[in-house]
This record gives sequence, structure tokens and C-alpha cells, in this order.
Amino acid sequence: MTDWFHHVIKAPDRDFAAAAAQRQLQLTKPPGALGMLEKIAIQMSAMQARIDPAADDVEIAIFAGDHGIVAEGVSAFPQAVTAEMVKNFVAGGAAISVLARQMGAGLTVVNAGTVSRSGFGDAVMDLPVDYGTANFALGAAMTDSQCQAALNLGKQVVDQYAVDQYVVDQSGKRVQLLIGGEMGIGNTTAASAVAAAFNIASPAALSGAGSGLSEKGVAHKVAVIERALKKAGKLQSPQQILAQFAGFEMVALCGFYIAAAQKGLPILVDGFIACVCAYAACALNSGARDWMLFAHTSAEPGHKLVTAAMQVEPLLDLGMRLGEGSGAGVAVSIVRSACLLQNEMATFEQAGVSDGR
Amino acid sequence: MTDWFHHVIKAPDRDFAAAAAQRQLQLTKPPGALGMLEKIAIQMSAMQARIDPAADDVEIAIFAGDHGIVAEGVSAFPQAVTAEMVKNFVAGGAAISVLARQMGAGLTVVNAGTVSRSGFGDAVMDLPVDYGTANFALGAAMTDSQCQAALNLGKQVVDQYAVDQYVVDQSGKRVQLLIGGEMGIGNTTAASAVAAAFNIASPAALSGAGSGLSEKGVAHKVAVIERALKKAGKLQSPQQILAQFAGFEMVALCGFYIAAAQKGLPILVDGFIACVCAYAACALNSGARDWMLFAHTSAEPGHKLVTAAMQVEPLLDLGMRLGEGSGAGVAVSIVRSACLLQNEMATFEQAGVSDGR
Repeated sequence: MTDWFHHVIKAPDRDFAAAAAQRQLQLTKPPGALGMLEKIAIQMSAMQARIDPAADDVEIAIFAGDHGIVAEGVSAFPQAVTAEMVKNFVAGGAAISVLARQMGAGLTVVNAGTVSRSGFGDAVMDLPVDYGTANFALGAAMTDSQCQAALNLGKQVVDQYAVDQYVVDQSGKRVQLLIGGEMGIGNTTAASAVAAAFNIASPAALSGAGSGLSEKGVAHKVAVIERALKKAGKLQSPQQILAQFAGFEMVALCGFYIAAAQKGLPILVDGFIACVCAYAACALNSGARDWMLFAHTSAEPGHKLVTAAMQVEPLLDLGMRLGEGSGAGVAVSIVRSACLLQNEMATFEQAGVSDGR
Repeated sequence: MTDWFHHVIKAPDRDFAAAAAQRQLQLTKPPGALGMLEKIAIQMSAMQARIDPAADDVEIAIFAGDHGIVAEGVSAFPQAVTAEMVKNFVAGGAAISVLARQMGAGLTVVNAGTVSRSGFGDAVMDLPVDYGTANFALGAAMTDSQCQAALNLGKQVVDQYAVDQYVVDQSGKRVQLLIGGEMGIGNTTAASAVAAAFNIASPAALSGAGSGLSEKGVAHKVAVIERALKKAGKLQSPQQILAQFAGFEMVALCGFYIAAAQKGLPILVDGFIACVCAYAACALNSGARDWMLFAHTSAEPGHKLVTAAMQVEPLLDLGMRLGEGSGAGVAVSIVRSACLLQNEMATFEQAGVSDGR
């Protein structure tokens, strides 16, 4: 029996993509004048198998986890911040909390493996795979079975959205857009290591200031990653790369993406770390790619390299570098605009406007 | 007595800008991690003179006008489309109609001078300066007094928002963000001519496909503009440049921007044509610049040259090239996110999050 995350992902509906593209040509605007909004609406049509796609019902899941690699001094913030931010997410004071309210989106906070042993209460899905990963400068960040458990956790979060609500006729409360975010002090280091192990680029090209390292701090971070890559040697599979370098929140996010694609749910991918997880998800199951929209380009320098490797063009470039799904939160409105324009604009014929042909 | 549009524009409040910048440093995120959203929120604070800026109450005005230059064959669509689109705006089927609904914004449609003589009914502010401009390949597009009348029309539209609602204590329904849009077959040609007359760049660099010209069509458009510039000779003032090449909807938009800045209302500038009008507004009254936010970069090639000349960095780059305020309509949500994040995020102290210092 193959693992669930290798199960085939069906492709979005090509007929609805073609119908949506045709409708775009009939709307009262020059062909292509809405730019990327047209592409997004057409992709949403294909994913939702409807000519009138929607992104009204949005669910955001934030996965938090801690990283043993912080022992090497690779972050500007102390490790305690991961758990503190989990509390901030549910208390409503974090950026993603504000954006979730603005967009009327649901927000699920998942403790995938912070170092905190004191528990987070009922407002958090408190299912740590372990209390932080091991230091990947010394060995694998997690065991193979922990990696599998983290993937399963991501699927578990998707399943909670989809058990009852998932209805094919679109009349129910089916989730229309999913966002996965992450929080984990040290996780730009982990993400750069994963991306380098996937041969996207060198650690030096992939690594940036994260939450605020100095130039010297970035150079140290690069050296730590280079040594760890050398020590790890050749890794045979995406799972091995994840187990060696990633965090529990990152692997859970990979599982989340794959499970969402398997359920036919459109995904809005956030910034650098999320995009590395999206890359890894596609490496595990290439069918996931077709279910992803890309929200924004992070100021973290590695992100542009990952989106280039995936040949995707994110919607926004606002110089954000916060993680926690915040760039995707801001982009929700763009996806909604794209859908509404396709659905509600008049055609040349309806409006009695000359089409210039 | 100087003309109203030369009256001094007060600067946004520096103390509130400083207080907002200070607050941004206390919010639970690495300093600068929200990128341009932080800059926008700080600028909104300065313009609204409040630490908790808002962009909830948004008003959009679309100015329509026709251009004599279309006789030279510079547009892919027939001139009738201008008036047809005015009807589409008020009927709710145009892109900006859809976006205004999405954002809960007011939409005012102004006939500043289409060729239609049949009237548009009560849903339109039907105040044409004339029935289209003259062909600027042959002479000035409008007279000096028409230019003045069009500037006044823009002010009249702002005045209607501000007569009763404008209250200093923010408890009333003061408009919090203004968008000006334009519709006019042939107006990318007019905008390119205006921008070239302001020495922003050459007609060849500034001119693009507009609503859909072929490569050959663009070359013809460039030649028409070059000949007209040469024929016009040296123009002495921004008003002369506008009278020579612009349309009534463009000059009205200039007046709209200046009047908004004089009232202390934040402005969200749309794409190529709107941005040329913003440039001209600043040439008429440099104080207008501080009241402008820039929504997006149009796919029309001239737009990047105008924003570079103004040294501004628009929020979005979605390949849109529709005009009618549509790029600004999409960007409203970004400005709202910026404000909400500054207002509603917890500080490090409030959330009990370690600030890493």
C-alpha cells in the first residue's frame, strides 16, 4: 500500500478553464486587460469546476514548530517567541489574526511541535509531533516516523474542513480557498537548507536576514547550512530531505498542501518558507502543483529563487517578510476581485458595448 | 486673485507620521516585516492626522471624455464605446462597478465631455465641457477656458463629497480615500502626448497598445504624437500642455486630485492615464504629491516611466491595463489591510512576546 501522500491528485477541470477563458473574452474590457486577474479567475474556475468561481469561504491554518538549529545562533529572536506567537495568533493580536478578521476567514492554529511543554488550551490544535526538532547541524532534524507523523498532521487539518462541508454541488459551505502559514523561530534557516538540498540554489543565494540578522549573522547562517549539507551527504528522496532539515510545522504544511490538492481545494501559497514547503509537496506528489496559487514574493532573497524554480509568478510584491500566512492573507482580496470580475462583469452583448471587432 | 488650483496645499501631519512609525516598531513582528504596508499605514496616519487611519469609506469618481485625435486612427475601439461604457458603469456591469461593490465604495460617473449629445440621465453627473475635444494633430485639443472649466469640474466632484461630510473629529462620514478613474477612447494617445510634452520620455517609449493596437498601430500612434508635438512647439505651462493634448476627463481628473489634496483627502492613483494626470496635477500644484498613494503599475509601457519620474512605487503589478480606476479598486483592500494591521496588531508588551532586543 502506498502512503496517502502519493495517491494520485486529479487535475483541475480543463473544460471549465476553457469556458472561463471564453467568458473573459466576452466581458466589457479589451482582451487581457485584467492581466493576472484573468488567469487567476480561469484557474479558480478549473479548480472549482464552475464558471462562477468564488473565494468567499476561506480557511487559514497556521502551523507552529521549533527548530534545534537555533542552538547554532541563526535567529535574531529567542526560541520562546514561537510559543508566544501561538498565543498571539489565538488572542487575535498577530498580523494573520487581523487579516483573517478583515477577510472573514477561519483561523486554525496548530502546534505541530514547539518546545513548549505547558500546552496551549482548547483554542489551539495542540498536537506536537515532538518538542522541537533536533539540531540539523549535528544530524537529522527528525526521524522518518516523525516526518510521516507531521505529514499526517497536515492531512488531519485539511480533513477537519472537509468531513461535513465538502459537497460537490457547491450549495453547501465548502471551503473555497485554503491558506497554510507557518511560525517557527529558525525556520528561514531550515527552509534555505531544504531548498539547497533540492538544488534550487546555493545556501548563500537562498539565505537572508530572516527576522532580522545582521550581515555577519547571515554569513554565519550560510556557513551553518553549508556544513550541515556537507555532513548530511546525498539524500535520496524528498522525505529524506525534509526529515534531515525541515521543521514539524514545515512538514505538516507539505502534508496540508497535498491533502488539500487531493480534496480538490484551491490553495493560496504564502512566502518563502511556505513556498519551499509547496516545492517539497510537489516533489512528493507533482499533481499538487495545479491546485496552488501564489500570493506574494517575500523580501527574503531565497523566495524569488524558489518561485523561479517552480515557474510561478506570485500576485503581490509588497516587500513583506513575516510568514504566518500574512502575505496570502493580504492576497485573498485579489483572488476575490478576480472571481467577482469574471462573474459579475457584463458582456459586450449584455451591455450594448461595441467590441471593436 | 490666483486660480483655486494654485492655492496652497497643507502638508500631511509629520507628528502623526512619526507616532505611526514608532507604533509599527512596537507591533508583534520584526521591524519592517510588513514592507510597503507599513509605509502606507504611516502615510495614511499623516494624511488623516490619526494614529488609527482607516480606508473604510471610499469614493470613486470616473470621468469620461472623448478625443478628437481618434480621427487619426489611434484606437482599436470605436469612439462610441466611451458613451457605451458610461452606461455600463452606472448599470453595474463594468469592472469598476464590480470592484466598487466588492469594496463597498461609492461610485460617481461624470460625463466630462463625450461626443454623445443624447444625455445620460440622473445616474450620471452629466456636465460635458464640450462634445469631445478637437483633434490635437491639427491644433489645441481645447481652449484655455475649456481647460479651466474641466479643472473646475474635477473640483466640483470633490466638493460634493466634502460639503457636509467633512468633519475634523472623524466621528462623521468623512471620506477616507478617494479614487479617480477615466474612460475615453483614444486617451492613451492623449496621455502619452501629455507625458512627452512634460519631457518624461519620448513618444516611442511612452506609447503602447492601449486597448489593443497592433505593432503597426502603435508605430502609427507614435508618429501621430511626434508630429503633433512638433507642430505645437514649446508650451509654456502645465495648463498649456493640458489644453494642447489632454481630454476633458483628464483635465477634470487633475482638478479632482488638486481639490482632494486641498481638502486633505488621501488619493489612490490608478494606472497610466490617471498617473499622467497626477503628474500634471503636481506640476500645477506640487503640494498634491503628498496626498497620493499609487495603486498599481499598468501593462501600458509608459506607466513605469511616469512612476519613475514621480519616484513612486505602486502597490500592485498585476499586468492590468483597463483604466476606469480598476487597478485602484483592486488595491483598496491593500490599503485597508495596511491600516487594520497598524490599528489592531498587538504590541510586544500587550502580547507578552519577546522582542529580541
